[in-house]
Amino acid sequence: MALTGNVVVLTGGVGGAKLARGLVEVLPPERLSFIVNTGDDFWRLGLKICPDLDTLMYTLADVVNPETGWGLRGDSLITLGSLDRLYRVDPWFRLGDKDLATHLLRSHWLRQGCSLTAVTACLVERLGSGARILPMTDAEMPTLVDTVECGLLGFQQYFVKYGWQPVVRGIKHQDCESARLSDAVLSALLAADAVLIAPSNPWLSLAPILAIPGARDLLARLSAPVVAVTPIIGGAAVKGPTAKIMRELGLEVSARSIADFYQDIIGGFVDDKRNEAFARQGLRITQMDTLMNDLPDKIALARGTLEWIGSWTA
Amino acid sequence: MALTGNVVVLTGGVGGAKLARGLVEVLPPERLSFIVNTGDDFWRLGLKICPDLDTLMYTLADVVNPETGWGLRGDSLITLGSLDRLYRVDPWFRLGDKDLATHLLRSHWLRQGCSLTAVTACLVERLGSGARILPMTDAEMPTLVDTVECGLLGFQQYFVKYGWQPVVRGIKHQDCESARLSDAVLSALLAADAVLIAPSNPWLSLAPILAIPGARDLLARLSAPVVAVTPIIGGAAVKGPTAKIMRELGLEVSARSIADFYQDIIGGFVDDKRNEAFARQGLRITQMDTLMNDLPDKIALARGTLEWIGSWTA
Repeated sequence: MALTGNVVVLTGGVGGAKLARGLVEVLPPERLSFIVNTGDDFWRLGLKICPDLDTLMYTLADVVNPETGWGLRGDSLITLGSLDRLYRVDPWFRLGDKDLATHLLRSHWLRQGCSLTAVTACLVERLGSGARILPMTDAEMPTLVDTVECGLLGFQQYFVKYGWQPVVRGIKHQDCESARLSDAVLSALLAADAVLIAPSNPWLSLAPILAIPGARDLLARLSAPVVAVTPIIGGAAVKGPTAKIMRELGLEVSARSIADFYQDIIGGFVDDKRNEAFARQGLRITQMDTLMNDLPDKIALARGTLEWIGSWTA
Repeated sequence: MALTGNVVVLTGGVGGAKLARGLVEVLPPERLSFIVNTGDDFWRLGLKICPDLDTLMYTLADVVNPETGWGLRGDSLITLGSLDRLYRVDPWFRLGDKDLATHLLRSHWLRQGCSLTAVTACLVERLGSGARILPMTDAEMPTLVDTVECGLLGFQQYFVKYGWQPVVRGIKHQDCESARLSDAVLSALLAADAVLIAPSNPWLSLAPILAIPGARDLLARLSAPVVAVTPIIGGAAVKGPTAKIMRELGLEVSARSIADFYQDIIGGFVDDKRNEAFARQGLRITQMDTLMNDLPDKIALARGTLEWIGSWTA
């Protein structure tokens, strides 16, 4: 029988949002909480941009651009073009016109003194999707990527401006020492019947969450099972720089390396059926089809994962 | 011979921008400074909106929407629609997508500590028009309209949200006691060979400038001639609430009332040839066609006014 309790998902961007999309079809929204990476967040022209929060919000509200997996469906770039043409502002970071509505409201509310957690809850409520979307922290904790060619880059510079081409030699989480998991995140984790780690990039999307003081410890001590889903399928990442970064950091591009990264916190690992099977003491491992091309795939992976976890205590 | 020295223009919105458009065809831009009303300015969703500065900037850069006289040519309302549809934000104040580029940059630079004067100079420089556009003050000095039906309204609420329909019983300039003319404005006035008061709304657009402590006095004491151009033509305003407000304040809707409003500061008055002629001791008055429908009209009024002032000392 599939797990029917409270499920908390640690997630980053597009890959995590796909699994989230499946989960909301399988569990009622009030059972689901998403703890979202905010290491990618940055300020641009006075606007607070939260790429991973937006991707998840838009996905669950069914307004996401289906071609990219991020941004709003049918968006345009008129303001960005005007910034460029009228004022010679480099348009390296895409700001969609519809998307600007989110950035404007969020920035305005933050300046009025609301926490990012409260602002996100308001945005989600107005977008009309039910699940709880929780920024990992209300502090600013920007991810910096240390590269061979350009030295230390802000995440969006690395990812967008340089198209994740520079060679990574390390990743830093600025000001992580003083950050803390928000109260909403702590409450969700303590009430969890299972914690899933979405198939997002472990180094870029999950590491920031785990870098918050106490986060790794708390996850390791939870009585609820913590289960990671592999982002590596057939020796490659579905999308984005996961495999490239693994190579650059001297790691084998395999599900095994992913399990190693989470080894102190996970009790279960959902591997892909295309990967070479491996075993590890104290770790439950299953293999299934983790490639999510369409909604039935997403639902199947969500249901399969919850059924597998449910079977542990059956 | 037409005046060829430094001309300073006190101006508000669309009417003043029309005369400004004519002046830049008649005088080299380095001879022209515009002192612009900022009483209409307000913050909306964390964006600083300066309607009169924008109207003049856009007009002189030839990017203004020719149908309205304000806003950018060919603009759209995608972000505004998204704020409304996704987040139920009342779209009462139009924020064009192209226009947002200006609001974003201005707000960003202001938050970085630049004065409105410096920010405006940067925007004007990037837009590529040469004339100096000077906010009357760097302080915030919002105009409040006291109305019979709704009490005290912020200017944009009165003007845009209620379409200037409420009956005006008074106009206030919040925090005017602590405002001061900017140094750039003072320098421009002290270097002026003539000061023009544009045919903008005296009560809404010019009164804020004159309400800044010392402004009326300084204008009265300048050795350079100060000349107002009538906004009342044939007993009516060309556009906007000037005549309506005059009636509500118990004033005769006539050029004479306009001359009265400026009586302590002007030495010359450009009346419209359609108006009933009047005389006043110590005031030079001329009549010409002040209606500006097209560019030749604007140039003719600009040239006619400068020639008339030039003739005083000839």
